[in-house]
Amino acid sequence: MRKKELLEDIGEKELINRLGKFMPKNQASDDCALIKTKNEKLLINNDSLVENVHFSDDSISPQDLGWKAVVCNISDLLSSGSRKTLGITISLILPSKTEWVWVKELYKGINKALKEYGGIILGGDCSTGNQKTISITALGIQGEIQLQRNACKPGEIILSTGIHGLSKLGFMIQNKINIDENISLKKRLINKSINHFCRPKVKPHFLTNLIKTRSNKKIRRIGCTDSSDGLFQAIQDLAVASKCKAIINYEKIKKDKDWPKGDRWDEYYFFGGEDYELVFSLPRKWAKNLSKLDKNIIEIGYFMRGEPSIEFKDQKKNKLLNNIPFKHF
Amino acid sequence: MRKKELLEDIGEKELINRLGKFMPKNQASDDCALIKTKNEKLLINNDSLVENVHFSDDSISPQDLGWKAVVCNISDLLSSGSRKTLGITISLILPSKTEWVWVKELYKGINKALKEYGGIILGGDCSTGNQKTISITALGIQGEIQLQRNACKPGEIILSTGIHGLSKLGFMIQNKINIDENISLKKRLINKSINHFCRPKVKPHFLTNLIKTRSNKKIRRIGCTDSSDGLFQAIQDLAVASKCKAIINYEKIKKDKDWPKGDRWDEYYFFGGEDYELVFSLPRKWAKNLSKLDKNIIEIGYFMRGEPSIEFKDQKKNKLLNNIPFKHF
Repeated sequence: MRKKELLEDIGEKELINRLGKFMPKNQASDDCALIKTKNEKLLINNDSLVENVHFSDDSISPQDLGWKAVVCNISDLLSSGSRKTLGITISLILPSKTEWVWVKELYKGINKALKEYGGIILGGDCSTGNQKTISITALGIQGEIQLQRNACKPGEIILSTGIHGLSKLGFMIQNKINIDENISLKKRLINKSINHFCRPKVKPHFLTNLIKTRSNKKIRRIGCTDSSDGLFQAIQDLAVASKCKAIINYEKIKKDKDWPKGDRWDEYYFFGGEDYELVFSLPRKWAKNLSKLDKNIIEIGYFMRGEPSIEFKDQKKNKLLNNIPFKHF
Repeated sequence: MRKKELLEDIGEKELINRLGKFMPKNQASDDCALIKTKNEKLLINNDSLVENVHFSDDSISPQDLGWKAVVCNISDLLSSGSRKTLGITISLILPSKTEWVWVKELYKGINKALKEYGGIILGGDCSTGNQKTISITALGIQGEIQLQRNACKPGEIILSTGIHGLSKLGFMIQNKINIDENISLKKRLINKSINHFCRPKVKPHFLTNLIKTRSNKKIRRIGCTDSSDGLFQAIQDLAVASKCKAIINYEKIKKDKDWPKGDRWDEYYFFGGEDYELVFSLPRKWAKNLSKLDKNIIEIGYFMRGEPSIEFKDQKKNKLLNNIPFKHF
């Protein structure tokens, strides 16, 4: 068997040297990264993944983790209306017993995601610590329409770029968590869910489609966030920031065709998290145009005047609201 | 006695709410921070401080730590020729048993440093974890002269914006590390060293002074880095990146007037780290002009053609080079 090559074996100098090879040549050796800007607005986002909080080696491979660490940051950029990802800085904290191959695979995943969605590695920092942590700061350029949490308006339709719950199901499968003994899941749904959990995708063409279908060019700001903390949390964040009441039209919400029925499955759908879909609201006409152009767009409900809150149109479903989303503290 | 208020008591929502109060109002509630840019070059830097690797609660107060976390990032920006700090994003990882007052003090220190050196909190991310970690990404605007590690030239004088070793001494005093039994340190030096360790300062006017004293306006790039990892490491990084040989003129190097003599004290001086001075090289005439304008500038030695390496002019001092700088892995 091949001897494991640990970070403490290869040493800091060699580690920095090896990591430098994943970066563009002109960025690799200096104190700061350098990017040229024009008269634009820059979007900046930061998201950290901590071992045994956000991931574990048992449930996700380092390559998938690298991909996911990039995607969760790009998702935030897109949810603000980024038209282009410039790049990322990576702050890595790793125990000295970490295998080099783990780090290499992580960077492979990072670069795969950057190749898919644009952007380069601008720089970073690497330190020892007792818990693996990947903290990424991503930079993007603001597009023509600003997407912000506080721009939803009463009367607007709440939409999402796709269905929810799959990543949560994938997480439970990967962590061998007991799901629902009474249900036998279709193989297709299992594979799709694991893929959603390990290699989540974002929708880089969302902004372009939004601009294409805009009937009123004067509207340059719409309400939007991403569903990284779950669909429910996303709607709540929009409702609170925009001071509107959200009505969820449960009957209308599309689910995966093999998604089981039942309260538990509704909970996974609304509170699951990490689906990285965009959740937003549009005037009725715009919503209709966009849904015609992009068949993945689904309707969730609508906003109305009222205290910032969420209600189900079907009152019986309001018991779902007793669920508590994932919290760190 | 007042009951300790822990993060797990106040909960995530309230924590984010409280942290938001340390941020400019227009940045507090969205997925991304937004900054306007012109036709300029942006500098981006990332630096992380990990508990029990870079700091411990025994040796530094949270307010000092917040100050220092900002300063070590601004130091990197300045060492690249930043003329203005735009802002920072903060990624915090904290055990749920952390007291709220610790976090509040940290942010007080962060904002004090930003008030002193410019910039705002642009955003960030907060997660639980078992080791306190503060990872900051700082953004600055590139000034008229680019400072880069690979721009030193043979024949240039190696200079530093100030003396070294004080932060290392402060670190040892704060950590009650046995220093040198044969020496009784002056009270003045003790206080100054603790202050250098806990509240390091940077030199924001360095670039302006550099531009003022430039004799040849065609030179728009000079070799520079900061001494965060020690004076020796800084010189080595310049020598390697610029492919020059550095000669250290030990006799010329200014030390604190109460700095004791002896090999051990030379080691602290050259390998101590965290002094956050800038180490750079200039043509002889420029070096002379700058030293006249800024009395804190000290001369270290010079670069010559040769294999990237460091030598002492006084060969007897070369035994110092057997020291190994601090490494993570």
